[in-house]
Amino acid sequence: MFSIAATTAATVARAASRNPSVRHYTAPLRDIKFLMNEVYDFPSHYKKLSQGGENATPDIVDSILEESGKFATGVLAPLYVVGDKVGCKYVDKHTVITPPGFKEAYQQYVEGGWQGLSYPTKYGGQGFPQSLALVQADISSGANFPWTMYPGLSKGAINTIYSHGTEALKEKYLHKMVSGEWTGTMCLTEPQCGSDLAQVSTRAEPQPNGTYKITGTKIFISCGEHDFTENIVHCVLARLPGAPPGTKGITLFAVPKKTVNPDGSVGDFNGVNIGRIENKMGVHGSSTCEINFEDAVGELIGLPNKGMNHMFTFINTSRLGTAVQGMGAAERSYQTCLPYAKERVSMRALSGTKNPEKPADYIINHPGVRKLLMLQKAIAEGGRSMIYECAMLADEMVEAQAKGDLKKAEKIDDRLGFLTPILKGFLTEKGIEAASAGIQTWGGHGFIKENLQEQILRDVRIAALWEGTTQIQGLDLLGRKILLQKLKPIINHTKLTTSKLWNVAVNNTGETRTRALKLIGKVLKWQAKTFVIAAKAARDRESVGVASVDYLMYSGYITLACHYVFMEAAAQKALETGKMREEKAFYEAKIHMSEYVFNELLPHTEKLAITMSTPTKTIMQMPASSFSFDYTRE
Amino acid sequence: MFSIAATTAATVARAASRNPSVRHYTAPLRDIKFLMNEVYDFPSHYKKLSQGGENATPDIVDSILEESGKFATGVLAPLYVVGDKVGCKYVDKHTVITPPGFKEAYQQYVEGGWQGLSYPTKYGGQGFPQSLALVQADISSGANFPWTMYPGLSKGAINTIYSHGTEALKEKYLHKMVSGEWTGTMCLTEPQCGSDLAQVSTRAEPQPNGTYKITGTKIFISCGEHDFTENIVHCVLARLPGAPPGTKGITLFAVPKKTVNPDGSVGDFNGVNIGRIENKMGVHGSSTCEINFEDAVGELIGLPNKGMNHMFTFINTSRLGTAVQGMGAAERSYQTCLPYAKERVSMRALSGTKNPEKPADYIINHPGVRKLLMLQKAIAEGGRSMIYECAMLADEMVEAQAKGDLKKAEKIDDRLGFLTPILKGFLTEKGIEAASAGIQTWGGHGFIKENLQEQILRDVRIAALWEGTTQIQGLDLLGRKILLQKLKPIINHTKLTTSKLWNVAVNNTGETRTRALKLIGKVLKWQAKTFVIAAKAARDRESVGVASVDYLMYSGYITLACHYVFMEAAAQKALETGKMREEKAFYEAKIHMSEYVFNELLPHTEKLAITMSTPTKTIMQMPASSFSFDYTRE
Repeated sequence: MFSIAATTAATVARAASRNPSVRHYTAPLRDIKFLMNEVYDFPSHYKKLSQGGENATPDIVDSILEESGKFATGVLAPLYVVGDKVGCKYVDKHTVITPPGFKEAYQQYVEGGWQGLSYPTKYGGQGFPQSLALVQADISSGANFPWTMYPGLSKGAINTIYSHGTEALKEKYLHKMVSGEWTGTMCLTEPQCGSDLAQVSTRAEPQPNGTYKITGTKIFISCGEHDFTENIVHCVLARLPGAPPGTKGITLFAVPKKTVNPDGSVGDFNGVNIGRIENKMGVHGSSTCEINFEDAVGELIGLPNKGMNHMFTFINTSRLGTAVQGMGAAERSYQTCLPYAKERVSMRALSGTKNPEKPADYIINHPGVRKLLMLQKAIAEGGRSMIYECAMLADEMVEAQAKGDLKKAEKIDDRLGFLTPILKGFLTEKGIEAASAGIQTWGGHGFIKENLQEQILRDVRIAALWEGTTQIQGLDLLGRKILLQKLKPIINHTKLTTSKLWNVAVNNTGETRTRALKLIGKVLKWQAKTFVIAAKAARDRESVGVASVDYLMYSGYITLACHYVFMEAAAQKALETGKMREEKAFYEAKIHMSEYVFNELLPHTEKLAITMSTPTKTIMQMPASSFSFDYTRE
Repeated sequence: MFSIAATTAATVARAASRNPSVRHYTAPLRDIKFLMNEVYDFPSHYKKLSQGGENATPDIVDSILEESGKFATGVLAPLYVVGDKVGCKYVDKHTVITPPGFKEAYQQYVEGGWQGLSYPTKYGGQGFPQSLALVQADISSGANFPWTMYPGLSKGAINTIYSHGTEALKEKYLHKMVSGEWTGTMCLTEPQCGSDLAQVSTRAEPQPNGTYKITGTKIFISCGEHDFTENIVHCVLARLPGAPPGTKGITLFAVPKKTVNPDGSVGDFNGVNIGRIENKMGVHGSSTCEINFEDAVGELIGLPNKGMNHMFTFINTSRLGTAVQGMGAAERSYQTCLPYAKERVSMRALSGTKNPEKPADYIINHPGVRKLLMLQKAIAEGGRSMIYECAMLADEMVEAQAKGDLKKAEKIDDRLGFLTPILKGFLTEKGIEAASAGIQTWGGHGFIKENLQEQILRDVRIAALWEGTTQIQGLDLLGRKILLQKLKPIINHTKLTTSKLWNVAVNNTGETRTRALKLIGKVLKWQAKTFVIAAKAARDRESVGVASVDYLMYSGYITLACHYVFMEAAAQKALETGKMREEKAFYEAKIHMSEYVFNELLPHTEKLAITMSTPTKTIMQMPASSFSFDYTRE
């Protein structure tokens, strides 16, 4: 089943580099297994799942991780540079050529059955739990996130059709999409609107045969055209005639690039025309298309005028996927910085010579460089832990839904809805910071293309923009998730988290206990601060916008620290069992990193606690016309 | 004299863009005049200068600003995009082609006499004070900083030869460099060393005729080759035979691209061979060269083995120039964000509809967008004030030197030495943040090349790397400037700054007084914190490396806030005189921005005050081998 191995695709991408540290990537399986087996106990979790859990035995999971790692390390990682260098080429309205090797890697991915890993066997999937697909996406994103966009977007389309399509629609599309034979996209943004989908103006006209004719322009459609597959199924937001204005008048449609014949074979082109592909700062390997729908035939997905509601399923999943991109950039950048920091010599250590055999000391001996590396490591490891918690929750939600326990499913959905903007907003912002830290570790060499660091920053910069900017995540968290639900999500989160931290405190001693107790205080302060903001918001709605991004980042730092305490507790437990020498160093490193996070990152909350209470007038009192007197435009 | 005007060079660069807000740049003369006339009183300052001060009458200064603005806005700004798009082309070891229009713009610059603005008339300069050249560089950098590198590096070479060369060497080179007929560079970095110049290995062999043969490879030489001029004079660090190891054995040489005949005309090529130009993240318009010196004939600059000492003159100046790049990026990005924020509509304001005639409100009504804009504005305006203070100090130092008051000159030099790493480190880091904020304001459109925002970030990213990384600036400030001088610089700075703030407090009321008083407390705390760090450093030298970057940023935020209080005080004074309506809004905006800086940016010091005291063990205890267990390399 998992026949993928390193191939000649890797050699396609060999770019000359003067530095041997470049393009080093290894799937971080030791860290992943620590999380899955020691922090979270995925084996017990899988045993409890009726859907696919029985297949996810430790042996099988292990082999999935190993094969996924081989594919990422051997096939995807070497294509990362060529993807940026060559990019995608627009040929005509139906043709976009992806970078050399991308198509072949996708074929291997399809042959390995990876796209269907966590989809129902009914549609040709392998029926494993959701969480395994997210773990696989983590491994794959770290190696080559622009490539990972193609199967990633397709999963978004599969989920949308699976959740809201009729059985006929599912039969028509899902088999080929789950196998990977076709891909899919999500078409939301238009030139005049991105975040504000209320302004969507693409039209859908009902036809006598029950289909619809879709007309309008969509922009920024990731993987909207490529040469991987024969067909592409677009999920498109559009308006029916007479639909109410705003988001309550938006409907979702499935619009294939080529029509599908009754026997399932591919027919003619369907008025889905690529106008251009964007010339972007990064993610050159992933095509970003302007799509002109011109009387394209589409079919309804879900209910008329309920398109926005249907989209939310997809939006939460894709936001988690974007959090993976932020975390993965930290991982990728760290992996090429660490060897460099161990090879490059510059100046003597302040505390005295460390490498007398060299003309200067390895830069990993300098505190300034260590701080950059530790930031990256903290975001990669801590971010991964944050994401894997949500992966488990996703499994549990699917399980509750399958068992018809809708109350439980809703409860989990609420919790995921609360955590998702924190992960998306915080991990993408910190992923950008981590990638920038990677450039800094390399000094001037970090600015040179062949040394890879700058590409990682250019690529990950998009993660704080798409799937809702950080500003949108902040409003989603504080406005939509917390205030609209009368603080319930933060109250529940505080209860759950303080209980888990208390558990760590009573079962540990020393610094681990101290950190757990300190964090209980921080979490309670977080809740208290939320009450203050909510009270203020009741009479001053603008204050929500003033507070939201800082509140989001504040939440992110506390959440990251919580995950480090949980990892630290797992490490302490392992150390008590007396692991062998190398293993001992592994666990001690987790504890050292926890100390780092507490002393270096958690203090950001001191600043954020102040600025999330900045008076509204400070931000709003200056008239728009006073922003400049040299270049006004009014 | 100032014959420069907008020309056809502008049209060379017209790139198609779908958005009218793109590439809008106007020299911010209103802000510059506010600083020069109302915050700092440059007119009185110039009156006191014996060197060129008498020429710098308000009328002349005004006309220099206006003409400089026209050149930047009309000629340089439109070339910014084409510089990135086309970049520099390596042809052969003696030929690099700059982007279309760059050469013509340089010719105009030379014809206008701009390069000699602040150089002595003896060498063909115009003899104006130093500060005017820095103001001109501010205006020019904001418009097109990759282009500004060429004359900028040349100024570095001129200053070096002027300060340390023999009269014969000055006569040989300075006339043509001051006129701009030739340019110059600084050649420090080698493949194995950037920050750590102790490792320089380029050799200089004395010849019977008193010259030296220079052999070695230099990398990252900005503007090392181009098509602007017939000759390029490289200032090269190299080692004489038997020179002591480390920085005490480095000597400075002038090495022209082409030899110079006794009559001053240009002779043969001189063993100065360009190996390649770098493919970089940004500043594509500025060539970055690997130069192989192969038995190139050079002449001594200054004393043997004193090359490092001689370099410091240049290094301080160039670090201030880099601070200008950071500030200029904030200015440039702000200028293209502000019109966009006033034109783009998305969602309704939280406090209710603001633009009922539109399908949604202008995004400048959203607090999240305002915060991004205000960050940019604060770095541009506040950073400019920080730089102009140093520009005045530079004038005063030159004046003291000319008058033979070496004690005063040294005192000013100490103060400049203290302020420079703060400006360089803080303003480049915040310039990067401001450019990234610009992308964020544009949402997904910020990631698209044609919208310019991403170029500004790619370009300015280098500013935190060259002329010493932020980590180096931190060590320079805390280690070399403060601790090595037994805290004298911070004690003097505290005394001077609290006195200035007290002056604001007693002459103002209301929030201005409150902010001035609050800041006195902050400045005193800064000094107190420095004592604590110094005491710790006495027994734990590594703690300096742990603290330094956070200490630098801490210093930066307090310094920025001080400048806002000084600007605010000047604005209050103007308001008391009852300026006419539009002017009133200008001054009120300064006060609003000061409130912003206090409530939103100054709180960063709360976090930094904690992390600059992070225990050394938190950063240093983890063994290098424990940084990873998945991809170790030892």
